[in-house]
Amino acid sequence: MSGHIGLGSGGGGRMQRELVERIRSVLSNPVLDRLEDGAVLDLKPGPGENLVVTTDSYVVDPLVFPGGNIGTLAVCGTVNDLAVMGAVPRVLTLGFIIEEGFALETLDTVLHSIAERASQAGVEIVAGDTKVTGRGKGDGIYINTAGVGIRPDGRNPGVHRLEPGQCVLVNGPIGDHSIAVMLSREGMDFEVDAKSDCAPLNGLVEALYSAVGPASVAAMRDLTRGGLAAALNEYAADASIDFHIDETAMPINGPVKAAARVLGFEPAVLANEGKLIAIIEEPIADAALKALQGHPYGREAAIIGRVGDKYDADNPRGDRPRRPLVYFKTQGGGVRIVDMPLGELLPRIC
Amino acid sequence: MSGHIGLGSGGGGRMQRELVERIRSVLSNPVLDRLEDGAVLDLKPGPGENLVVTTDSYVVDPLVFPGGNIGTLAVCGTVNDLAVMGAVPRVLTLGFIIEEGFALETLDTVLHSIAERASQAGVEIVAGDTKVTGRGKGDGIYINTAGVGIRPDGRNPGVHRLEPGQCVLVNGPIGDHSIAVMLSREGMDFEVDAKSDCAPLNGLVEALYSAVGPASVAAMRDLTRGGLAAALNEYAADASIDFHIDETAMPINGPVKAAARVLGFEPAVLANEGKLIAIIEEPIADAALKALQGHPYGREAAIIGRVGDKYDADNPRGDRPRRPLVYFKTQGGGVRIVDMPLGELLPRIC
Repeated sequence: MSGHIGLGSGGGGRMQRELVERIRSVLSNPVLDRLEDGAVLDLKPGPGENLVVTTDSYVVDPLVFPGGNIGTLAVCGTVNDLAVMGAVPRVLTLGFIIEEGFALETLDTVLHSIAERASQAGVEIVAGDTKVTGRGKGDGIYINTAGVGIRPDGRNPGVHRLEPGQCVLVNGPIGDHSIAVMLSREGMDFEVDAKSDCAPLNGLVEALYSAVGPASVAAMRDLTRGGLAAALNEYAADASIDFHIDETAMPINGPVKAAARVLGFEPAVLANEGKLIAIIEEPIADAALKALQGHPYGREAAIIGRVGDKYDADNPRGDRPRRPLVYFKTQGGGVRIVDMPLGELLPRIC
Repeated sequence: MSGHIGLGSGGGGRMQRELVERIRSVLSNPVLDRLEDGAVLDLKPGPGENLVVTTDSYVVDPLVFPGGNIGTLAVCGTVNDLAVMGAVPRVLTLGFIIEEGFALETLDTVLHSIAERASQAGVEIVAGDTKVTGRGKGDGIYINTAGVGIRPDGRNPGVHRLEPGQCVLVNGPIGDHSIAVMLSREGMDFEVDAKSDCAPLNGLVEALYSAVGPASVAAMRDLTRGGLAAALNEYAADASIDFHIDETAMPINGPVKAAARVLGFEPAVLANEGKLIAIIEEPIADAALKALQGHPYGREAAIIGRVGDKYDADNPRGDRPRRPLVYFKTQGGGVRIVDMPLGELLPRIC
């Protein structure tokens, strides 16, 4: 095999066997090593437990950025989707769509990041697939990851459990991933020291559950595309409920603040890859905060606001605005409405 | 939303919500409709049962061809990977990577094919993801499907069970998918009436197991990229075992025969999307054949050959060729060696 992916590497023949062997050798484990059409797992939910599955594709541009690469994302993003469902991530599948001519050296970098992050998160890669497209019909490499986890007995976070008065916690500064990717694009010469926050959050979520018990986490969501603004607005729309966020309590790193101010971005719409919000009953919010702050990925966690009024047949909106809204209390003491972003300000952020 | 996918449809905001809603409305079921970060399943392997997971990406060109489209493939291909592992397919996840400007009308065609084939195969789409790439960074649409199934007690097909004397069965004529896709490419003006064989084979596999019992199927493989030649050569290499195939017993439809002859292809390397081989102990091979022939996707099933000698420390190859080989007995009575294809003769066949 030369230093680049050939079109024949996707064809099911000897060239593909070589490519698959290259991938297997890095991600090796007893299940993957069988290289069969599927992976037979020794994974059974016990009484009260449930399987949780999820999928995400990754098309980030550029493939490598400060703090990570597309492989880091492919593991962390899918692990985090399982974790915020309350599940313990167990296995991942990987689908690679590779453009002809892609450098094998970059593939190796990506594979090693996948192996490293999977090991950190305690998940195994159990099945994979490779396809190759012609030049100009892709952009280096796209990755799909599907994940399977087990949700322990008693956990059931979800939008259906949002109630007025609950606290909104975030595990740290927002916006780093967006700014890091943006500034590593060609043609950007704005100099700030931003690094993606990409990280697997399942350990953090377990620390939270250990501290407050399985029933006390009302809802969680990871803040990826569309950031905090999209997550809260989706909750608001789906649960018919307002949110009141205190902008001064919202952790944001200096470089992100600077970049957002100069370039004119709303930090709340910036994407993250290692941040989540947890919605927690008020009486145990401080205990939850402490649990987050005790974990390496939650040192700068904060309570940033509350769930507001809920509207339904018993509590019509009356003279309020027609739909539930996300209110931000500003530094100056005023209140502004942060709406659902129309689309990501930066395409291909993850 | 206009008639085409915009770059903003991948951004996590309102435009993406519209796209997700469009997809959800076609594939609707109670789990998918929750639109959460992952799907909580009520799926538990019983005693002796195992979870099986698999993944495949689909990059077929063109997207629509006689007999199917990329959506048909995305369901059938992954269902078949689970079925040949002996598993009953239960749920699928879907990851779409869509190029900016892709026609929503084509998306709808693909979605309806996905819904139709999922219903036919008895699987539910439980989680999905959409990403949008810029113009010239994709080719319309790429789809990844991951699948989860349950393998019933007593089933354990696999390459480790290949033994000399077992029979090789195929469920029908080979090569239709390759020829149908090839001839629907731009610039091909060779006129034959070929149609892809794309079909979910889980029903056929259940019919086979019902007839012969869970322990009697030694191995199965679906004949996709690289066709029969790749499947047998992989078995030969992985099990250190020869194969003897009778070319005259191999079902091939007339149009494929004609196209292969005129264009100079080896039918055994052509891709299929509704064909599998089953390796069965000789005493029950006839019962297995009958079971296949009794199913709509196995009417033209045939016994096409046998597993040959196995080589190991107790049975060294002696003066035989250095590695295990796949031998085809030809129409003229001779024997030729069919090797592992180097790469697919036609890129992006699935």
